[in-house]
Amino acid sequence: MSGFLFSQKKPQKKPVKKTTVAKFNYHDEFKRISDEVMTNGTAYENLGELTKGIGPRFSATPGYMKAVEWAEKKLKSIGIEMIWRMEAKAPVWIRGRESLQIKTANGDWKNIRMLSFGNSEGTGGKDLTGEIVLINSTSELNAMSVGQLKDKIVFVNLPMDPKIINTNDSYLITAKSKLISASVIAKTGAKALIIRSLTTAMDDTPHAKMVYYEPDDKVRIPAVSIGVKSADELEKLLKNQKVAAKLNMTAQSKGDTTNPNIIAEIQGKKDSKVIVLGAQLDSWDFGEGAIDDGTGVAQCIEVLRTFKALGIENNHTIRIVFYANSENGGQGREMYAAYVKKKGEKHVFALGTDAGGYSPRGFSLDMSPQRRRQIFEWKNYFLPYGIYDFDQTEAIQDISPLKKLDIPLAELVVDTQRYFDYHHSEQDTFDKVNKRELLLGATAMTQLIFIIDKNW
Amino acid sequence: MSGFLFSQKKPQKKPVKKTTVAKFNYHDEFKRISDEVMTNGTAYENLGELTKGIGPRFSATPGYMKAVEWAEKKLKSIGIEMIWRMEAKAPVWIRGRESLQIKTANGDWKNIRMLSFGNSEGTGGKDLTGEIVLINSTSELNAMSVGQLKDKIVFVNLPMDPKIINTNDSYLITAKSKLISASVIAKTGAKALIIRSLTTAMDDTPHAKMVYYEPDDKVRIPAVSIGVKSADELEKLLKNQKVAAKLNMTAQSKGDTTNPNIIAEIQGKKDSKVIVLGAQLDSWDFGEGAIDDGTGVAQCIEVLRTFKALGIENNHTIRIVFYANSENGGQGREMYAAYVKKKGEKHVFALGTDAGGYSPRGFSLDMSPQRRRQIFEWKNYFLPYGIYDFDQTEAIQDISPLKKLDIPLAELVVDTQRYFDYHHSEQDTFDKVNKRELLLGATAMTQLIFIIDKNW
Repeated sequence: MSGFLFSQKKPQKKPVKKTTVAKFNYHDEFKRISDEVMTNGTAYENLGELTKGIGPRFSATPGYMKAVEWAEKKLKSIGIEMIWRMEAKAPVWIRGRESLQIKTANGDWKNIRMLSFGNSEGTGGKDLTGEIVLINSTSELNAMSVGQLKDKIVFVNLPMDPKIINTNDSYLITAKSKLISASVIAKTGAKALIIRSLTTAMDDTPHAKMVYYEPDDKVRIPAVSIGVKSADELEKLLKNQKVAAKLNMTAQSKGDTTNPNIIAEIQGKKDSKVIVLGAQLDSWDFGEGAIDDGTGVAQCIEVLRTFKALGIENNHTIRIVFYANSENGGQGREMYAAYVKKKGEKHVFALGTDAGGYSPRGFSLDMSPQRRRQIFEWKNYFLPYGIYDFDQTEAIQDISPLKKLDIPLAELVVDTQRYFDYHHSEQDTFDKVNKRELLLGATAMTQLIFIIDKNW
Repeated sequence: MSGFLFSQKKPQKKPVKKTTVAKFNYHDEFKRISDEVMTNGTAYENLGELTKGIGPRFSATPGYMKAVEWAEKKLKSIGIEMIWRMEAKAPVWIRGRESLQIKTANGDWKNIRMLSFGNSEGTGGKDLTGEIVLINSTSELNAMSVGQLKDKIVFVNLPMDPKIINTNDSYLITAKSKLISASVIAKTGAKALIIRSLTTAMDDTPHAKMVYYEPDDKVRIPAVSIGVKSADELEKLLKNQKVAAKLNMTAQSKGDTTNPNIIAEIQGKKDSKVIVLGAQLDSWDFGEGAIDDGTGVAQCIEVLRTFKALGIENNHTIRIVFYANSENGGQGREMYAAYVKKKGEKHVFALGTDAGGYSPRGFSLDMSPQRRRQIFEWKNYFLPYGIYDFDQTEAIQDISPLKKLDIPLAELVVDTQRYFDYHHSEQDTFDKVNKRELLLGATAMTQLIFIIDKNW
């Protein structure tokens, strides 16, 4: 089915109908939601269609547009009438061919599995050769004398800290290191940057990341990642000998285009205030984008399906946003926040889900203490579903730009142990997702939106 | 290395040394334990050796003895000096060849994937043929007239209830159904029993179970399981036509032999009271016995390794028991309880782990209200490790016979969503286990044993 069946602008809303106020037994209502999702939920099958049927859906590619059309069709099939597109800017970046080789003491060139960072400069398809210099701490970098890294290829072998129980935390600590910034490394005169993959797995799968060049970067150096086994072998090798590397990438940026966010909603029966939930629709240009973030897409659809299937009379409008180009720029989320501000729409609550569809454990609550306390009062309704953790306070997913508009934000908190084994790698595939875990997440999201809709 | 290096009887203990009472900052001690396990833990690598290196280790088979020798060697390698064997009775059952075919209206025989129940009678290698009759509820069974099931093959297609959030609960509810008892079905005059696999997965993998014949069973009928896809197709077929089945199994029981429990301990520095933790060493005769219960074995070893590595001065003796033939009879656990009773050994606490090595969520506490309250007071120490659930009260693992001796029991409670996808099937393999989840479970076990050792 073509996307042209769906409006490119928001359709006119039907007049709002007033309903009488009802009292709810939330224990029973939560069970009714759970029973519906766990028995009739289609999130897993939908995820299979999105990941196995469409595959990678990188921004500004035909894959992304196939995902857009699939999402619109799917939302229509569950009885959603209000579906529209909101175009957002998207950078065009094409990976092309890429290879990394190292030359050891005996003179052989050896291939190393690698992935270019997204938006990385290429080498113009020519060999970029240089000596590898290992740097594993900021103090090591600072101790280098001027010119010492000139024309070198810097190799940063920083592992994620296994001692940090929440792997989101250890990922962010490592990801924010200045050592893995192409901008910082370029200022030393180095020619390229090789990074140990940010992963919890001990394999040789490279995991990618976006590179952001600063406007004042005089030279934009290529940045690539290698698997942890290769990284550890390379570090070992460098202890005994000099190692030269040969990098060849045809990667290039080709300006900007646009990509649509998809928006769909069930109108409020009481008013036109909005509860928004969302996930990123785009993925990387390899793997299947299952845990990042096909699971979030499938769970958001499941929430609306469940509201429809149970005939829930929602007070406020329940809206999904599927954000465009989350992985390379985040213009989709910025566009949505700008739209809300411009329209002056009143948003009661915004929920994000982008953590892999693993077994849910709670919600992080980025909102006023008063709002947090209200949710704390509902904790016991959630406990039978394994949801107990309401202590985290960060919303860093695609809803984050809505913070400026003083909208209460929350994110689904899941078990974090497996996510970074597969994140941003070709291992991010459908088989990494468990059906019941995925559905339990959708259950918790529906329950939270239900109780907020009735009380805020 | 041969098992002869290890004692077959309990070695003499060294004299107990008194130590001074120290105060502990449990927050710091818990972190020290976690850091050691998450950084240097070898449970995952050990699990790999046990599952990929040895493979199935069914009771009374050479595989089991290989596992015994591996466990002894492994325990010795981490510096445990007290290691001994305790022989327990074990039934000998040999699966042999097995096949199930169904004959449809057009006269074709079609193979169906199946697994004999453990300890099931075979068909003596001859074809057992009969008409299939579907029964899906006790009332359907009760409504049958006398003789209606005579010489029939009963097919029970009872799914696990997807609405029950804790899959252990839904498994036990279904597993305890009289409908899947070969004894109950045999009394109707039926010739054989075909069961829908007890699983949460929607595939065609058959999952086995043990069959227990009652002493008064006049006839012992064969019982087999089939995958859920086959089961659903068969039920559909039976709505439109009669279906004949042909079962052929050479399975047979060959009396009893013995199998050793493995026992290993670190002596108490203060007294000879015992804290025992354990797991089943045996597995089914297919798959790799990874989640059932290689993970428990690996976690128990990890607890002792961590006590050793951190040089923890344990007040009481910390003892591991690896139980023999847990899957077909449970004589290993009964033997251990009888030993404790006979010796009059004072056990302070017993911990079980047999739930698949998934992300830990708490401990079920089967003990006096006073002891439970003491553990509740320690909850906040566990929370940073995702351990929050101390509400369950059942200990059904291999420690259960110790209940008669008034020993406080606890089991590691993990995320239950994935376990029954693989349980008792050829899918129970090493790749179903995540390293960090496994280590987090071992961390929580070590922490609990540490704090109990200091306080009880």
